[in-house]
Amino acid sequence: MRDFLPADKARRERLLGVIRAGYRAHGFEEIETPVMEDSSRLHAGLGGDNEKLAFAVLKRGLTGDDLREASDPLALADLGLRYDLTVPLARFYASHRSGLPAVFRSIQIAPVWRAERPQKGRYRQFIQCDIDIIGEAGSMAEIELITATVATLDSLGLDGSTVRVNDRRLLTSTLEVFGFPAREHEAVLITVDKLDKIGPSGVVTELRERAFPTGPIDALEAFLSRAVTEDLPFGADAISAALPDGVDPLAVAELAAIGDAVIAATGSPVVQFDPWLVRGMGYYTGTIFEIAHPSVGYSLGGGGRYDGMIGRFLGTEVPAAGFSLGFERIVDLVDLPAERQLDAVALVFAADVPPALALGLQRDLIALGQRVRLESQPRNLKPLLAHLAAAGFSAYALVNASSTVGNLDFRALERE
Amino acid sequence: MRDFLPADKARRERLLGVIRAGYRAHGFEEIETPVMEDSSRLHAGLGGDNEKLAFAVLKRGLTGDDLREASDPLALADLGLRYDLTVPLARFYASHRSGLPAVFRSIQIAPVWRAERPQKGRYRQFIQCDIDIIGEAGSMAEIELITATVATLDSLGLDGSTVRVNDRRLLTSTLEVFGFPAREHEAVLITVDKLDKIGPSGVVTELRERAFPTGPIDALEAFLSRAVTEDLPFGADAISAALPDGVDPLAVAELAAIGDAVIAATGSPVVQFDPWLVRGMGYYTGTIFEIAHPSVGYSLGGGGRYDGMIGRFLGTEVPAAGFSLGFERIVDLVDLPAERQLDAVALVFAADVPPALALGLQRDLIALGQRVRLESQPRNLKPLLAHLAAAGFSAYALVNASSTVGNLDFRALERE
Repeated sequence: MRDFLPADKARRERLLGVIRAGYRAHGFEEIETPVMEDSSRLHAGLGGDNEKLAFAVLKRGLTGDDLREASDPLALADLGLRYDLTVPLARFYASHRSGLPAVFRSIQIAPVWRAERPQKGRYRQFIQCDIDIIGEAGSMAEIELITATVATLDSLGLDGSTVRVNDRRLLTSTLEVFGFPAREHEAVLITVDKLDKIGPSGVVTELRERAFPTGPIDALEAFLSRAVTEDLPFGADAISAALPDGVDPLAVAELAAIGDAVIAATGSPVVQFDPWLVRGMGYYTGTIFEIAHPSVGYSLGGGGRYDGMIGRFLGTEVPAAGFSLGFERIVDLVDLPAERQLDAVALVFAADVPPALALGLQRDLIALGQRVRLESQPRNLKPLLAHLAAAGFSAYALVNASSTVGNLDFRALERE
Repeated sequence: MRDFLPADKARRERLLGVIRAGYRAHGFEEIETPVMEDSSRLHAGLGGDNEKLAFAVLKRGLTGDDLREASDPLALADLGLRYDLTVPLARFYASHRSGLPAVFRSIQIAPVWRAERPQKGRYRQFIQCDIDIIGEAGSMAEIELITATVATLDSLGLDGSTVRVNDRRLLTSTLEVFGFPAREHEAVLITVDKLDKIGPSGVVTELRERAFPTGPIDALEAFLSRAVTEDLPFGADAISAALPDGVDPLAVAELAAIGDAVIAATGSPVVQFDPWLVRGMGYYTGTIFEIAHPSVGYSLGGGGRYDGMIGRFLGTEVPAAGFSLGFERIVDLVDLPAERQLDAVALVFAADVPPALALGLQRDLIALGQRVRLESQPRNLKPLLAHLAAAGFSAYALVNASSTVGNLDFRALERE
C-alpha cells in the first residue's frame, strides 16, 4: 500500500480523468459502491482465488468468549474489503435494478484490496477501471466493451493494443472433442492456462502427472503439435481452422461476429483469436478477453461474459459482460508530460506585509482565474523556488507592504 | 454504507470537483494515503472517541490456536480502516518530509470509516475534505485555512457561512482562573462542551454531579450567568471582555489577530469568537474552529491547530493546523441544478443495423466531441427515452441500415 505525493497524485488523477472521459464518451455511467461488502457475499465462490486474498473486518463488540468459541477466523468477521468490482456490481444491480435502464452500462473506477505478499508491481491496494453492460444478451455487449476499451487506451496514447479473445464454450467444447469428461474440464483448464509459460510439452507433462485420462491427453498433444496459434486472422473460417473438428459451431459464429464487427468498426486488426486463452475466474460463461500492449509482456486488463452471476444475487438470470483495466499497470506505461500549470503562481511576502494585504492579493488573483499560493519569505529563497517549480508553479512575485495587483512583478519559475 | 447510482455519483463528483478546485486555487496540493493504517497507529490515543469506532482488519493466516490464545479482539488485528484523515496525514508527513516543501499545504478528499450505529444522517463510510498546513507556526496558517474554506463554501453557493473560533489555551486559562486544577481540565471540558445543548444550568448541575471542586464551579456559574456570548464583535477588546479577568493575554492577542485578518481580507464578519467552543479531539493545542451555515443547526466542519501530533510520529515537533469539511453534510445543502449534458446523445438502432455501422457512427460523433450511447431499439421506445432523459441525455436519433452522420435526425429529449 502506497502514499501518493502531490506530483504522483496529480498524474494519477489526470490519467483516471482520461479513462473516465473515454468511457463516458461511449455512453457508460459511473456508479460507486462501499469498499466493504458482507463477508458471506465475498466468500460465495464467485471470486475464484481472490476470495482467499480478501481482507476480513472484525465484528464489533467481540468478547473473549467469542474468540475462544470461534474455530475459524472468518467466523469473527462480518465484513470484508472487496477484492474486485464485479461481485459488488452484481450485488448493486440486484439491489437497484428497478431504478436502472433495461440495458445498464456502468463505469466503476475504484480501489480494491488483496492480501498479496508484497512484491514488485503487486500492491495490496490498487485501482481497477471496470466497464460492464448488464441486460444485453447479444454480442453487441462484447463489441461495445472492446471498442470502448481500445478507444480509451488510444486516448491515453497506448495505441497498438491488441485484444486476445476466446470463448469458454469453445474451450469446453474442445476438451469434449478430445474426450475429457465434463466434470474434469475446470481442472484441466487450470493446466491449459499455463500454455504461455510452460509450452505444449509442459502442459502435456503436467496433465499426465495429474493423472487425467491418457486418451484425451494424447488427442490434446497431437492437436497442440499441429496448431499454430500466432497471428491468426479473424473470421469463422480461421477460428474453425484453429480448433479441432466438431467444436460448437454456434460459439464459433458468435465469436467470429464479435471480432469482425470490432475490426470493421476500428479499421484495424485489433482483435486476435487465442484458442488457449482461459482466464481464471470461474464465473465466465461465454466470451473472454485480455488486452495486451506491444511494450509490455503482461496483460493490461481483461474481461468476459458472466451471465450466471447476477442471478446468484437477484434470483433471476440477467446477462452481463464486463471489461476491467488494471490501472496500476497502465500508469507506468503512459508517457504523460508533466502538467504545465500556467495559471499557478506564488506570492512570496516579506515579514512586514499585513496578512490582510496578502490575502486580498490572493483573492483578487483567484478571481482572475489564477491558482495562488502564499509563502512567507524565507531567509534563503532558493529551496522554496525549486519546490514551487517542481510542483508546476509557473511564476512568483515578491510582495511588500505597498504591493497591489497592478504592480506585482512576476518572474518565471523554470523546472530544472 | 451506501451505493451511489449514476445521477447521485455525478452530483457528488461535481461538488467534490468544486471543492478541489477551490482549495487548489488557494495553493493547496492533493495527496492520497491508503485506506488502512497500522492498528497501533490508529489506537495511539490521537483519535479521541473515534478510536473506538475504527473498523479492525483481521491478520491473515490466523489459526484456531491464535483465536484461543487472544484475550483481546484487537490482538487479532494488525490493520484498521482510518477514522479520520489527520492521523494518516501525520504519518504521511513523517514518512515523506524530505520530499515536501518547508511549509506543506495538503488537500485530502477521501472516505473515512466509523462503526457508528446506523442512524439518519450518520454513515459508516463518508467523505471528508481536509486541508492542512504543516510547518507554519504563525497564525497565517489559521488565516489561510479559514479564508480558503470560506471561499470554497462560497463557490458551492453556501454564502453566509460563519466560523466560530476559540483557542484551547483560552479554555485552559479560563478554567485556571476559576480555580479548576490542571489535571481536571480535560474532564471539565467534556461537560462544558455540552453548553449549546444543556445550557448554563445544565453544565453547572452536571459538574456538581461529577463532583468537581465547588469553588471553581461557583466561579464558573457566576461567570456564565453574566456572559453574553452571542454576536460578539471581534477584536482583542471584545475577546477579553467575554472572558474572566486574567486569562492568557498572548492567546487573546493571537486569536484577535486571526479574526481581524480574516474579516479584513473577506470584508465580512465571517468570524465569531465563541468562548465555549471546545471540540472533542484531544490533539488540538491552540486555535480551534467550527463552521456553521444559517440554513442548518449542525456544523459543516471544523479544525484547529495540532502542534504536538506530528512529533508523535517524527520525533521532532512540527507545527500544524487543519480544517476539515464534512462532505456528507454539505452535499444535501447545496442546490446544484442537474447537469445539462448538451453533448450527450443516444443512437437507437433497428435490428437490421450492422454493429459495425452503429459503432462507426458512434466513433465519428465521439470524434466531434459528443458522448454517444448505443441502444438497440426496444419494442416500446418510451421507457428507454424516459431513462435517457433522466440520465441527462439531450437528444436521440433512430438509426437504420442507411444512416450516416450526415442524415441522422436528432430529436430532443425533455426531462419531465
